[in-house]
Amino acid sequence: MNLLLISNSTMVGESYLGWPQNYIKDFLKDKVKRVLFIPYAGVNLSNSSIEESWNIYEEKVAAVYKKLGYEIYSIHHESDAVKAVRNAEAIAVGGGNTFYLNYMMHKENIITEIKAKVETGMHYMGWSAGSNAACPTIKTTNDMPIIEPDSFNAIGLIPFQINPHYLDAHPDGHGGETRQQRIEEFLAVNRNTFVVGLREASLLEMHDNKIELKGKHPLRIFKYGQKPYEINIGESLDFLF
Amino acid sequence: MNLLLISNSTMVGESYLGWPQNYIKDFLKDKVKRVLFIPYAGVNLSNSSIEESWNIYEEKVAAVYKKLGYEIYSIHHESDAVKAVRNAEAIAVGGGNTFYLNYMMHKENIITEIKAKVETGMHYMGWSAGSNAACPTIKTTNDMPIIEPDSFNAIGLIPFQINPHYLDAHPDGHGGETRQQRIEEFLAVNRNTFVVGLREASLLEMHDNKIELKGKHPLRIFKYGQKPYEINIGESLDFLF
Repeated sequence: MNLLLISNSTMVGESYLGWPQNYIKDFLKDKVKRVLFIPYAGVNLSNSSIEESWNIYEEKVAAVYKKLGYEIYSIHHESDAVKAVRNAEAIAVGGGNTFYLNYMMHKENIITEIKAKVETGMHYMGWSAGSNAACPTIKTTNDMPIIEPDSFNAIGLIPFQINPHYLDAHPDGHGGETRQQRIEEFLAVNRNTFVVGLREASLLEMHDNKIELKGKHPLRIFKYGQKPYEINIGESLDFLF
Repeated sequence: MNLLLISNSTMVGESYLGWPQNYIKDFLKDKVKRVLFIPYAGVNLSNSSIEESWNIYEEKVAAVYKKLGYEIYSIHHESDAVKAVRNAEAIAVGGGNTFYLNYMMHKENIITEIKAKVETGMHYMGWSAGSNAACPTIKTTNDMPIIEPDSFNAIGLIPFQINPHYLDAHPDGHGGETRQQRIEEFLAVNRNTFVVGLREASLLEMHDNKIELKGKHPLRIFKYGQKPYEINIGESLDFLF
């Protein structure tokens, strides 16, 4: 399997998909020319309609990939979404709202096909919601449940859960749960699952059976009954499989 | 209808259910002696089991209500949850994880019964997840979707959506969505629904057809196609109905 699972598209003050560009280039190399884009998570880039939001999202992502030497074409223009996946050289799943993404992936019936293609070598990259989509379920998203998907099950390319945009900070004077508390709630009812807190400007890259942490920060690992701990760049992640 | 919909149980540095105590007393007055507690959102107050977590939650809440002159008894000890609701004088729905709360309310089949009772005058109070449960759906919760409920539909005691713990701040250097952006995503796909950002130390109290904001902060009102705006204490909220 070839996976690039990115925490977040953009660091504050940088251009869109700025920091991960070199990683994307290094991931796809010259093996791929065209990348099928899944824009479903981007629901509000336009005020007029969700379709129009996807158009704008496609343009925005295409501009970045073009600079890297790849052509982006979005699944929402394809008459047959399953066939589009079947014929894809690579897939990029954009961030935004994880519930809308999962809702559409179930509606368009592409989950099984994406999984089958990735298992036979197709390159899969995703950021934010697109990284959550590679997990067994969307149960560790930070997003608002703005629409009810057919199921919380996602593509299941990896056996553990990612929490993207993992942050340690807690806004001053806020009486709501911290991120760590939310993950602990997840663990209380999902006791056998690892949760990987993927901090900003960090990603996981997988080739064959080898997965690596890249970027700027350590991972934070959560498991029921264990104290959360850090995994640094270069340390083995084999225990997640 | 008699509703007390509280943003959050506890302000940083204060005791549990500290700030809302006087409001609870003023809401229930001497009309009520016993309050049926719904602990389902509290999934991780114990390391041993969710049942034990609910036991601990019940004790914690009972201690506060006892000081105010009311007896708390939790639904999870009742052999027939629907009957327990039918016989209740008042209901308190505790905060925690909204998905687990909604999962259990559907599983125990108590949603219709709670609605019917509240419509005939039973006092309903909730905080955090318990306030979201009074909305048409749980689609404006901030919580992690740690379990898949039968439906996102909630009790529907009010026709608008509350976002509890509404906060304006955005953690430094965080590339994830702000709360306002998340709500805008909700509005993009739910264009006819008002969202009410209920800040910490704030609550909505309703008697008959009159609803009032109480506490420390203005509400922030969100509607598709409108600039978000503030409603201060004392201003009319009739437009929400």
